[in-house]
Amino acid sequence: MAIKSLEDLFVETLKDIYYAEKKLVKSLPKMSKAASDEKLSELIMEHCAETEEHVKRIERVFDLMGKKPSSKKCEALEGLLKEANSVIDEIEDETVCDAGIVSSAQTVEHYEIARYGTLAAWARELGMEEAAELLDTTLDEEKAADQKLSALGESEENQRAAA
Amino acid sequence: MAIKSLEDLFVETLKDIYYAEKKLVKSLPKMSKAASDEKLSELIMEHCAETEEHVKRIERVFDLMGKKPSSKKCEALEGLLKEANSVIDEIEDETVCDAGIVSSAQTVEHYEIARYGTLAAWARELGMEEAAELLDTTLDEEKAADQKLSALGESEENQRAAA
Repeated sequence: MAIKSLEDLFVETLKDIYYAEKKLVKSLPKMSKAASDEKLSELIMEHCAETEEHVKRIERVFDLMGKKPSSKKCEALEGLLKEANSVIDEIEDETVCDAGIVSSAQTVEHYEIARYGTLAAWARELGMEEAAELLDTTLDEEKAADQKLSALGESEENQRAAA
Repeated sequence: MAIKSLEDLFVETLKDIYYAEKKLVKSLPKMSKAASDEKLSELIMEHCAETEEHVKRIERVFDLMGKKPSSKKCEALEGLLKEANSVIDEIEDETVCDAGIVSSAQTVEHYEIARYGTLAAWARELGMEEAAELLDTTLDEEKAADQKLSALGESEENQRAAA
């Protein structure tokens, strides 16, 4: 598709994050299973449930624009997941692997924070207030997930320090 | 390299961001040249100069650990740059292309924010305060760059609205 207007760019970016969210719904359970710390494992599964809602919100945005949802391979997420999988596959020590999982998950959250921030701003510029609100809701959940991961990373550090 | 300890994971992640920063020093001038808005073009070149300092700070961290700087292909950054280049190559309209460049640059900043946040926390846990401070300095510059891009994106939106 040729991108000629801000609306085209908005739709292409929506397809990118739609691919990313659907891929994450499939990938997060593997990440959760690889985590040794129960709290980390649960946090990732909770975020997986939120991610299913993010998929539905994107479908709602497509719907508001009178478009059928479609996705486009997100090269950035593919790269982020490749790094995350190498952490899971290569690190045997449980607590070190958990530290790597927290770190990888945060790179994914930050990718999404950047994307939803842009999409919400563009939606407002295009006069799509309802879409902007849906995107803002997801943005807030991604930021909250990043903060929960930071807090968990710190508490794991304290545990390691006390061990 | 087998990752067996938090120090190993720290070093592997440092190699990842070292690759990313060196690649950005080469890639940002292309992004700057592709931007039509003079302020955006300048902002990217200013950040490119900062990025050269980020490379030196990482070399200093390797040095503090008594290690020779080395890099490891950063799949995440490769994916992010692939997306950024497709924006530059596929969008003919200047203002739409600029919006895409701001958006792509912010995904890169957020990747770095996630990485430096983790690295600084791990450096502290490993008792490397001087390294942590170097990493924090870069983290602050990445956050500032992201905020400048957001502000520029908004002022461009206002210009498009007034046009």
